[in-house]
Amino acid sequence: MSFMNLLSTVRSFFVAKKRVFLDYASTTPIDREVSAEMRFFEHTFSNPSALYTEALISKEHISSAREKIAHLLHGQSEEIVFTSGGTEGNNIALLGVFEHFKRTGMRPHVVTTTIEHPAILEVCTEIEKRGGRVTYVPVDDQGIIILPALREALTEDTVLVSVMYANNEVGTIQPIREVVKIVKEFRKKQNTAWPYVHTDACHAFLYCDIHTTSLGVDLVTLDGLKMYGPRSMGLLFVRHGTPVHPVIFGGGQERGIRSGTENLTGIMGLAKACEVASRYRETEVARLTALRDKTIKRIMEMFPTATLNGSATDRLPNNINMCFPGLNAEFAVISLDLLGVCLSYSSSCRTLKEDSSSYVISALQKPECRESSLRITFGRETTEKDVHRLLAGLKKVVQ
Amino acid sequence: MSFMNLLSTVRSFFVAKKRVFLDYASTTPIDREVSAEMRFFEHTFSNPSALYTEALISKEHISSAREKIAHLLHGQSEEIVFTSGGTEGNNIALLGVFEHFKRTGMRPHVVTTTIEHPAILEVCTEIEKRGGRVTYVPVDDQGIIILPALREALTEDTVLVSVMYANNEVGTIQPIREVVKIVKEFRKKQNTAWPYVHTDACHAFLYCDIHTTSLGVDLVTLDGLKMYGPRSMGLLFVRHGTPVHPVIFGGGQERGIRSGTENLTGIMGLAKACEVASRYRETEVARLTALRDKTIKRIMEMFPTATLNGSATDRLPNNINMCFPGLNAEFAVISLDLLGVCLSYSSSCRTLKEDSSSYVISALQKPECRESSLRITFGRETTEKDVHRLLAGLKKVVQ
Repeated sequence: MSFMNLLSTVRSFFVAKKRVFLDYASTTPIDREVSAEMRFFEHTFSNPSALYTEALISKEHISSAREKIAHLLHGQSEEIVFTSGGTEGNNIALLGVFEHFKRTGMRPHVVTTTIEHPAILEVCTEIEKRGGRVTYVPVDDQGIIILPALREALTEDTVLVSVMYANNEVGTIQPIREVVKIVKEFRKKQNTAWPYVHTDACHAFLYCDIHTTSLGVDLVTLDGLKMYGPRSMGLLFVRHGTPVHPVIFGGGQERGIRSGTENLTGIMGLAKACEVASRYRETEVARLTALRDKTIKRIMEMFPTATLNGSATDRLPNNINMCFPGLNAEFAVISLDLLGVCLSYSSSCRTLKEDSSSYVISALQKPECRESSLRITFGRETTEKDVHRLLAGLKKVVQ
Repeated sequence: MSFMNLLSTVRSFFVAKKRVFLDYASTTPIDREVSAEMRFFEHTFSNPSALYTEALISKEHISSAREKIAHLLHGQSEEIVFTSGGTEGNNIALLGVFEHFKRTGMRPHVVTTTIEHPAILEVCTEIEKRGGRVTYVPVDDQGIIILPALREALTEDTVLVSVMYANNEVGTIQPIREVVKIVKEFRKKQNTAWPYVHTDACHAFLYCDIHTTSLGVDLVTLDGLKMYGPRSMGLLFVRHGTPVHPVIFGGGQERGIRSGTENLTGIMGLAKACEVASRYRETEVARLTALRDKTIKRIMEMFPTATLNGSATDRLPNNINMCFPGLNAEFAVISLDLLGVCLSYSSSCRTLKEDSSSYVISALQKPECRESSLRITFGRETTEKDVHRLLAGLKKVVQ
């Protein structure tokens, strides 16, 4: 028996058996309809590049899935590139545009924000290592990008602006329309087709209508894992004419942008997940916004020193991120687990760095909160009863 | 109704209803045990980087899957890096080692063969674009790497030698042990830890025991799709000490080599697929070798001018690739489809290039066969009856 096995056995004696899952930002369970769709296609022949009937049928399924998704995003089918998830989508968007311009002899400049996901920030570090230049635009104390700073950051070498649609930790929704407006003005002044605008919409898609045409963005990342969809499956919207050098090379699938045999089952599951998300969006936004605001109010009443991290209004309906001054958030998460409540401090991806502080909360000019904040994220299964369990748990754990 | 839909409707009136699938090299159906395993884990919480009990359990499942696979490959768990498939695995191996050495100020040199899969050859083209140097070692008329040419190709800048374990088109099994021996001698003479040796074993794993220790290879690519396993799921074996710069950047999963939330369901499915493959290997090798040789013999008897492409002995048990002089292979594949027999000319990935000739068969010094060859690949479901259907089809289509 390994140490990990032992640990979990010991733990299982103590943890509450009834569980309340409030970490939907880290992962969403797979939707029943998505799972049924994938089951239906599981045994369908799956290499669409062959020449016989079965392959032709697979190809048609994929092309209708692509059409369906394009329709939901108000784009064209050829603009949908299937990927292996959000991380890969972000990598293709950033490295793809960067490498394209680098090869024209430029020293490309990328603009992003200080509170992006590691799947953006680590790519930016790589871009710097490859000779590019990156500007990290700050956010205000609500977590909203400072637009004048964005305007100032643009230079004639700026090839890409990448701003997340909604933050994974504090749930702040960014003014993407304003970002695009500023970039478009700059393009016009410069008379160039770039800088292109990318948005990582992985955490936003369930709650925000991603209307690529009216938003005017050039690249959008989505992830199956964050929308009750298949794992290792995502997509990158790439507007016509946006130059993207591939990150992965091979058979030339996905218009050469992402080689590798198409995953028929995953693609069908992703299309279904997009459809289900769009269908639930309006009612879930209303339901979760009410539940969120009620919960925030109750927490504030119970803990008068607690403060909300991020914006109270421009915020994902499912996200609560609270600072409890003096709290050891890591210890609180483990204690709440014993009481049957699953939530997180900062984000899961940060846990890997073995750094319990949140750079997002630091960027909100709340350094005293960066190790004392809890992230509570709701989902489709979350009920009032779960909130009661949460509040009871917080009462025991937070003084 | 799109043109594709119309085409398939028209086609469906003509194609035989009883189907014989003989294109297992392009894709393998998902195994029932694998599918059951994935179903079991489908609704398990899946982000192992969180801190609560559910995440800890996911982490344990992943670590036991990793151990199981490592055991089957005679390696260590930390040497298994989960990927989104064979194409990505090959990209990480080649670009990863290349980029590592490039950053030391070298102009790295990569050695490969002329008959690798596009997921190697296209990466090599990219390496050349990035300032690297690539030598393509020729193969003999059986498709076997010319070892003296390999020896000669090695220079002090050679950082990686990548030779596929078995060819996807003509099924030739390469003398990987000899390749490693030559490279090790060169390393010893040079007193360096490199060149490292990579092998793309995607098509070999079902039939060849990939014993990483006794083979002495440093990097091995495997793909779920080619082993009755999950799609968009594969692995790269990376021997301790082999320096690999990441291709995809983010949360730092898979020891930083492949960022992105781990796909628990896919990982469990892949481990099961590896286990099932290892269990079936011996009996399937015997059964399919006999069926293959019998089929080759019958084809030769029926078509005296037909020749076998590739080696008669160092060959995957499930692969038959025959040249029928004067045949239009593309037309034959479509005609056989109408008779209910699915097979291919060259490989599926090549179809995308809209180039019906095979560069592999050209490399075998059989230019007259490059548009006149058919690839027939068997699998677990293939029976004598299927072979009869194949032979009957060939009789009608090939004059």
